[in-house]
Amino acid sequence: MNKLLIVGTVAFDAIETPFGKTDKILGGAATYIGLSASFFNLQSAIVSVVGGDFPQEHLDLLTSRNIDISGIEIVKEGKTFFWSGLYHNDLNSRDTLVTELNVLADFQPKVPQNFKDAEVVMLGNLHPLVQSSVLDQMETTPKLVVLDTMNFWMDCALPELLDVIKRVDVITINDEEARQLSGEYSLVKAAAKIHTLGPKYVVIKKGEHGALLFHGAEVFFAPALPLEEVFDPTGAGDTFAGGFSGYIAQSENVSFENMKNGIIYGSNLASFCVEKFGTERMVSLNENEVNQRLRQFKALTQFNIEL
Amino acid sequence: MNKLLIVGTVAFDAIETPFGKTDKILGGAATYIGLSASFFNLQSAIVSVVGGDFPQEHLDLLTSRNIDISGIEIVKEGKTFFWSGLYHNDLNSRDTLVTELNVLADFQPKVPQNFKDAEVVMLGNLHPLVQSSVLDQMETTPKLVVLDTMNFWMDCALPELLDVIKRVDVITINDEEARQLSGEYSLVKAAAKIHTLGPKYVVIKKGEHGALLFHGAEVFFAPALPLEEVFDPTGAGDTFAGGFSGYIAQSENVSFENMKNGIIYGSNLASFCVEKFGTERMVSLNENEVNQRLRQFKALTQFNIEL
Repeated sequence: MNKLLIVGTVAFDAIETPFGKTDKILGGAATYIGLSASFFNLQSAIVSVVGGDFPQEHLDLLTSRNIDISGIEIVKEGKTFFWSGLYHNDLNSRDTLVTELNVLADFQPKVPQNFKDAEVVMLGNLHPLVQSSVLDQMETTPKLVVLDTMNFWMDCALPELLDVIKRVDVITINDEEARQLSGEYSLVKAAAKIHTLGPKYVVIKKGEHGALLFHGAEVFFAPALPLEEVFDPTGAGDTFAGGFSGYIAQSENVSFENMKNGIIYGSNLASFCVEKFGTERMVSLNENEVNQRLRQFKALTQFNIEL
Repeated sequence: MNKLLIVGTVAFDAIETPFGKTDKILGGAATYIGLSASFFNLQSAIVSVVGGDFPQEHLDLLTSRNIDISGIEIVKEGKTFFWSGLYHNDLNSRDTLVTELNVLADFQPKVPQNFKDAEVVMLGNLHPLVQSSVLDQMETTPKLVVLDTMNFWMDCALPELLDVIKRVDVITINDEEARQLSGEYSLVKAAAKIHTLGPKYVVIKKGEHGALLFHGAEVFFAPALPLEEVFDPTGAGDTFAGGFSGYIAQSENVSFENMKNGIIYGSNLASFCVEKFGTERMVSLNENEVNQRLRQFKALTQFNIEL
C-alpha cells in the first residue's frame, strides 16, 4: 500500500456563517486533508503539533480513519493553534477574527521513520520553513510532492516560500493568490509564470467556480458541484487537496491524465465538506455517497460531440 | 434544412476596454446571434430594425452569411440603435455610457412569411412585448423557443417579461439576473424558481466562470475556455445563445442530452467572440478553428473515472 505523508495544522476553529456559529471545534489543514485522503486505499500519517488542551477524542477520530498520528507532537504545557473566522453573506469572503499560533509558533516537524519513504507528500498550508523541513527529512525522493499555501506567506515569508515552491511538483493555490504570486491577472498567464518558479503542475482553486489544473500548455477544469446551499466553506480547499493527493497516492500514477481524475475526486470530496460546519460532514460521509456524487460529476460535465 | 428565426437588435456599439476603444462599430444581439448561428447548417432570418444611417456593407455581411434580412426593417428617416459602454479593469463589469433607442423605440416586428414555420425561435434581448409579438406571428408551433433577456426589463417591464417567459422552453440569463428574477442567491434554487415561471430549461451564464443548464433536477455545466486575454466581452452572451440555438436547429433534437452539446457549442463560439473588438473575430472565424477549439473543450472537461 502506498504512503501519503501529510504536514499541516491540527487545530481548533470557531466559525460564524450567515447560517450559525460554532464554539471551538476540530479544524486545521492536516485534519481536513487526512479525513479526505482516508477515502482512498493508502497508509497516511500526519505531521503536526497540538497542545495539552487537545481532546483525545479528536486524535482517536484520526486514528479510527487509519491515519498514523505518531508524527503529531503533543506539547502538554502548550495550547493548540486557534483560528476564528466570520464569513460574509455570499460566503466567498471572510474576516479572520482571531489567530492564536500557540504551540505552532515553535513547531519543529518530525517525520515518522516509517514515512520517510512516502510516495506522495502533501505539504498543507503552514510556514514554508516547516514545509521545507519535512522535505529535508525524506530519505527517498517522493513520486509527487504537492504544496498548498496562502497569501499570508506571500506577504510575510516570500523568500522562504519561493525556496520550497522550487522543490515541489504541484502547487495548489486560489485564484487571488495565483494573481498575487505571479503579478498576472489572467489565470492562464499566472499559471505560466508559476511554472517558471518550479512546479510542473499548477492547480488554481476558484471556490464555487471550480478548479483549473495547468501543465505547460495543457489545461483541465473541474467545476464545483452546484449546491442548493453552501453551509460553511471552511476546509474545502484542504479537503480538495486531500482528495487530490490521496487519489494520486492510491493510484500511483502521476500522469496528467490521471491528475484529471484526482482533481475530480478533490472537487467531489470538497462538495461534501461545505454542507455542514467544520469536519461534521466529512466524518459522517461514506463511500456510497462519494460514488453517487461522482456519477453526478460525470452527468454534470461529460458530453458527446464527435469530431 | 431547418429554420432558425432570430429577433433582436441590429445596432451600433462604441466600446472602451482597458485595451482600447472603438468608434461606432457593428453590434446588436441579433447580429451576434446570427453570425454565431451561421456556423451551422440551417436557414436563418433576423427580425429587427435599423435607421437610414446603417451601412449597406453591414447588411451585406449578414447576407453573405446566408442570413435572410428581409425581416430587418429600414427606417430611412430614422437613426439606428446606439449603445456605448466602458468596461472596468477586470472586464467583469461595465458602465453603460450611452443608450439611444432611436428607431427601436417604435419597433413593430414583422416575421417574414417564409419563417412563420421556423423550427427554432431565438428571442434575443429586446422589449418583452416585441418578443411576444414575434411568437404571436408564428403559424406553426416551434420545436423550441429560446429567450434571452436582461435585468433592464426586470426593472422596467416585469409583467410583460413574465408573460413572454411563460411561453418559452429555454431562458438564458446571467447569474445576477437569475438572482434578481428569482430572489434566490443559490443558483440551484434560482433555477428551480425560474422553472416555475414556465421554462423547462434554464441556462445561467456566468461569463468567465462558464454556463449552467438546468432541467428539473438535471444539471450540466460548460466552462469558459481559459484564455490568455479577454479583449472585449461585448456580444459573448449573444454569441453563446446563437451557438446554442443554431446547434439545436441544425440537429433537430431538443433532448437534454443534445442541449449539453448546444451549451458546449455556445461556449466554444463565445470564446472566440471575446478575442477581438465587437464582431471582428466572428467575421474572420472559420470552421477548422471551431473544430480545433472543440477538441480543446474536450481535453479541458472530459475525464475517465470508471464507476
